[in-house]
Amino acid sequence: MSKPLILVSNDDGITAKGINKLVKLMSEIGEVLVVAPNSPQSGMGHAITVGDTLRLKENRIFGDHIAAYECSGTPADCVKLAKHHILKDREPDLVVSGINHGSNTSISVLYSGTMSAAIEASISGTPAIGFSLCDYSSEADMSHVDEHVIKITKEALQKGIPKGIALNVNIPPIQTQSIRGVKVCRQANAKWEEEFDQRVDPHGRKYFWMVGNFVNHDKGEDNDEWAIANNYVSIVPCQFDLTGHHAISMINDDWDI
Amino acid sequence: MSKPLILVSNDDGITAKGINKLVKLMSEIGEVLVVAPNSPQSGMGHAITVGDTLRLKENRIFGDHIAAYECSGTPADCVKLAKHHILKDREPDLVVSGINHGSNTSISVLYSGTMSAAIEASISGTPAIGFSLCDYSSEADMSHVDEHVIKITKEALQKGIPKGIALNVNIPPIQTQSIRGVKVCRQANAKWEEEFDQRVDPHGRKYFWMVGNFVNHDKGEDNDEWAIANNYVSIVPCQFDLTGHHAISMINDDWDI
Repeated sequence: MSKPLILVSNDDGITAKGINKLVKLMSEIGEVLVVAPNSPQSGMGHAITVGDTLRLKENRIFGDHIAAYECSGTPADCVKLAKHHILKDREPDLVVSGINHGSNTSISVLYSGTMSAAIEASISGTPAIGFSLCDYSSEADMSHVDEHVIKITKEALQKGIPKGIALNVNIPPIQTQSIRGVKVCRQANAKWEEEFDQRVDPHGRKYFWMVGNFVNHDKGEDNDEWAIANNYVSIVPCQFDLTGHHAISMINDDWDI
Repeated sequence: MSKPLILVSNDDGITAKGINKLVKLMSEIGEVLVVAPNSPQSGMGHAITVGDTLRLKENRIFGDHIAAYECSGTPADCVKLAKHHILKDREPDLVVSGINHGSNTSISVLYSGTMSAAIEASISGTPAIGFSLCDYSSEADMSHVDEHVIKITKEALQKGIPKGIALNVNIPPIQTQSIRGVKVCRQANAKWEEEFDQRVDPHGRKYFWMVGNFVNHDKGEDNDEWAIANNYVSIVPCQFDLTGHHAISMINDDWDI
C-alpha cells in the first residue's frame, strides 16, 4: 500500500523548530512535501497575496529525501501554491500545519497563520490539522508532543475528518506531570484586549507596539482554554462557514428592510 | 439627543473612492471618526501586526469637521488602535467598513480585510457592518448604494445587531433596473480555485501571480451569491466562533483518542 501524501506548512517560517519537529513526525507516517513561508508570518490570519508577486524556492533543509519549498507568501498562499502549482493533479491525503510556537486556542484561531493554512486546505476539500504548542519560546521543549501528534494524525488518516472541517489542535506546554488526555471541544469565549505601547523613534516620530492582554470570560469546561489549563490536548473542529444562522431570523423578524 | 459615534475603516486604503462615499453617508447619520490603512490591504484576512511597529497619522482629507487617521497596519489593527488608543474610554456606537471595491460574498469573507475590521469590532462587543460593492473597479459607479447603506445603518443603530455578529453586506453593481430589495441570507457554498501565472523576471528568476477562478457549487436560493446574481442586496450575519459543533460528537464517536 502506498504511503499517504502529507503536505506540511506553518506560519513561523521554514527554519522554525516546530516545523522541523512536525516534518520528522510526519515522515514516520507518510510521504512528506513541505511548502512553508521563508519568514515568520505570525498573526497573518487568512491573508493571501493578491496584489503582489509570489516566489517559490526549492531547498533541502529537511534532508535529501524530503521535497521542501520556501515561499515568499502567507501560509494560505503556501497551501494554494502546493496544491495548484507543485502537486497539480495529485491530491494530498492530509495537510498539517505547525507546530506553532504559541497557543492558538479560543479567538486566536482567527489571527492564526497556522490555522489559516489548515482552513485553506479544508476549503479546497483536503483534510487538515493545525498543531500548536502553548509555549511561545522559539526553543520550546517539544519532547512531550510526539505521541499525541502521531496518534491524532493517524486517526485523521484512518477515520477521516468531517467534511468542511479543519482541526485546531493545541498541546499544553511541558510539565512535570504528563498530559492527561485529549478533549474534543468548542472554541472558548475569550478575547484579546489590546494596549498600545507608544514610543518615539530617533527622528522624533511616534510609533506603537501592540501589546495583547488575554481575557477569558468562559466559565465552561467544554472549551479549549479549560482543556489546556487542565493539561489536556484540545481539538476544536473549525468550519469556514461564518454564517450565524440564529441571527438570520432575528434580523428578519426585528428589522424593517 | 447626541449623535451616534460611528467609526469608519476599510481595506482599500484611506484614499479609495469607497471609503469617501461611506464617510459622506455616515456623516448624515452620526459623528464620524475615520481610522483606515494608508495603503491597500485587500486580501489581508484577519491579519494583525504583532511583530512590527505601527504608525498613525492624523489627516483632514474628509474635511476639517471629520477626524481621520491613516494607519500603517491592517484593517483589524485600525479598529484596535481606534478603540484602545484614540477613543480609549469612549465606545463607538457602530463600526462600518468599506465600501469595498469588489464582492465579499461567500468564502471571500475569510480573505476580506473589509470584513476583518467589522469582525474585529464584533469580537470586542461593538456592532459592526462591512459594506462591499460587487464591482472591482476603483472608479465604480456607487450612485445607487446610498439609500441601502443609510437604511441598513439606521436599522442597525435603532434595532441593534445580535451579540457576537458582524453583518456582511454586499451590494450588486449598478444596472439599468434598480435593486429589487434586501435578502438576509447565509454564506454561499462557493470557493476560489486558483491558478498561478508563472513568469520570469529580468534577472531570470521565476515568480508567480495568483489568478483566482470563482466556482459556485451552491444551488440554493437562500445565499448571498444568489441574492447578488438576482439583483438583491445580501446581508450575511457573521460570527467569530468557528466551532463546527456537529463535528464534536462525530469525532468523539468515531475516533479512538
